[in-house]
Amino acid sequence: MKIIVVGANGTLGKAICDELSPKHEIISAGRSAGDVTVDITSPQSIRAMYEQTGRVDAVICAAGDAYFGRLEELTPERNEIAILSKLKGQINLVLLGQDYVNDRGSFTLTTGIIMDDPIVGGVSSAMAGGAVRAFVQAAAIELPRGIRINNVSPNVLEESMDSYGPFFPGFEPVPAARAAKAYRKSVEGAQTGQTYRVY
Amino acid sequence: MKIIVVGANGTLGKAICDELSPKHEIISAGRSAGDVTVDITSPQSIRAMYEQTGRVDAVICAAGDAYFGRLEELTPERNEIAILSKLKGQINLVLLGQDYVNDRGSFTLTTGIIMDDPIVGGVSSAMAGGAVRAFVQAAAIELPRGIRINNVSPNVLEESMDSYGPFFPGFEPVPAARAAKAYRKSVEGAQTGQTYRVY
Ligand SMILES: NC(=O)c1ccc[n+]([C@@H]2O[C@H](COP(=O)([O-])OP(=O)(O)OC[C@H]3O[C@@H](n4cnc5c(N)ncnc54)[C@H](OP(=O)(O)O)[C@@H]3O)[C@@H](O)[C@H]2O)c1
Ligand SMILES: NC(=O)c1ccc[n+]([C@@H]2O[C@H](COP(=O)([O-])OP(=O)(O)OC[C@H]3O[C@@H](n4cnc5c(N)ncnc54)[C@H](OP(=O)(O)O)[C@@H]3O)[C@@H](O)[C@H]2O)c1
Repeated sequence: MKIIVVGANGTLGKAICDELSPKHEIISAGRSAGDVTVDITSPQSIRAMYEQTGRVDAVICAAGDAYFGRLEELTPERNEIAILSKLKGQINLVLLGQDYVNDRGSFTLTTGIIMDDPIVGGVSSAMAGGAVRAFVQAAAIELPRGIRINNVSPNVLEESMDSYGPFFPGFEPVPAARAAKAYRKSVEGAQTGQTYRVY
Repeated sequence: MKIIVVGANGTLGKAICDELSPKHEIISAGRSAGDVTVDITSPQSIRAMYEQTGRVDAVICAAGDAYFGRLEELTPERNEIAILSKLKGQINLVLLGQDYVNDRGSFTLTTGIIMDDPIVGGVSSAMAGGAVRAFVQAAAIELPRGIRINNVSPNVLEESMDSYGPFFPGFEPVPAARAAKAYRKSVEGAQTGQTYRVY
């Protein structure tokens, strides 16, 4: 299959590419590098990406920023980072990509454990995850031509513990390679509307 | 208690006021009428509302718009209606209201059954509901001074069946007065981070 991986150069994205590249043709996408560049915070940039790639069998998004910090410091402006990126960025990849995905193709978006199991400082990211999960479940019953949609919700990754570890006391980190298997399940399987929890 | 009800003139808001007014002092708020007027899509308008009301014991939001229509017609622009109103509008009432709520006071926001049980045409509203539910769960562990936060997720209301009925085939509508009880549970109870499902 021909698969766009947005965020292919990131911690999670690299593991997804390693998992999928033996059997599939990957089109890597990212803000600063990749076969195509895209800024998911811009609908215009997403449109330009799809015009460049043409039709594909799957779109995976492993990109999305959010402000991390205490609720008392979470202003509407700081909350906008997650809304623009993790939330609208991922959702607009679907809204603008429907016509570029082949029959029985798929979208796979990324959420994260903190939408289920909150941490101090993670309110904005949890909010975006909750939006994406509900979007996925609702969009699944309407996508045309057998197109499917799921989201993968990883625990904190082992590879990210140096930077994110202090935010996740007592969480059991998972290897990115384990999270990557859930993306493969979404792409090669037949389920839709699911949240694959890798906890 | 002194309680702001945003959307007090709406179908749900009126029932909430009926449930709470015998025991509490209601400050009704709405876009076009009320003790105070507010447009929750504008952070500036929310700030102005709180400056006018001063400190309160509880804030309830029973307002929030969303585009209803098929996924294939859901553009990023149409999706923005729910993001501005149901999602950011409700969340900004909390982010900007933290300092205006008394110790052990509460916020109660509104979601809806379609974030759990999707319907055709409801993707955007489901997305906003999912965001609000995850926000509530995450914010609950960080709010200061014993301030609590919950969300009420009503089924379609009996009073709204003339307009929304065709979107909800086979759903069992609930009276607005029944949904209103969940707001009372949130305001007068001691739980936090909860989703009260009125299904
Ligand atoms: N790491 C974890 O522990 C963990 C756990 C659960 C969930 N997640 C979620 O998984 C996703 C990826 O996390 P990660 O740790 O792999 O992040 P990462 O290492 O920072 O990588 C993110 C990748 O996404 C790209 N990207 C960022 N913003 C973009 C935008 N606006 N448009 C297009 N591409 C963009 C980046 O490209 P450039 O480098 O070119 O900017 C980068 O390649 C995030 O949503 C994160 O919240 C991560
Ligand atoms: N009705 C249902 O069956 C049902 C079921 C589940 C969930 N819900 C949710 O419950 C909420 C209320 O629904 P409803 O049926 O009661 O709606 P409604 O009858 O249309 O009432 C909405 C109220 O909110 C106010 N409002 C709307 N936008 C506002 C804004 N930007 N700023 C401030 N106030 C605003 C309106 O004031 P003005 O009249 O002055 O504009 C009106 O008083 C919505 O989020 C809805 O999705 C409804």
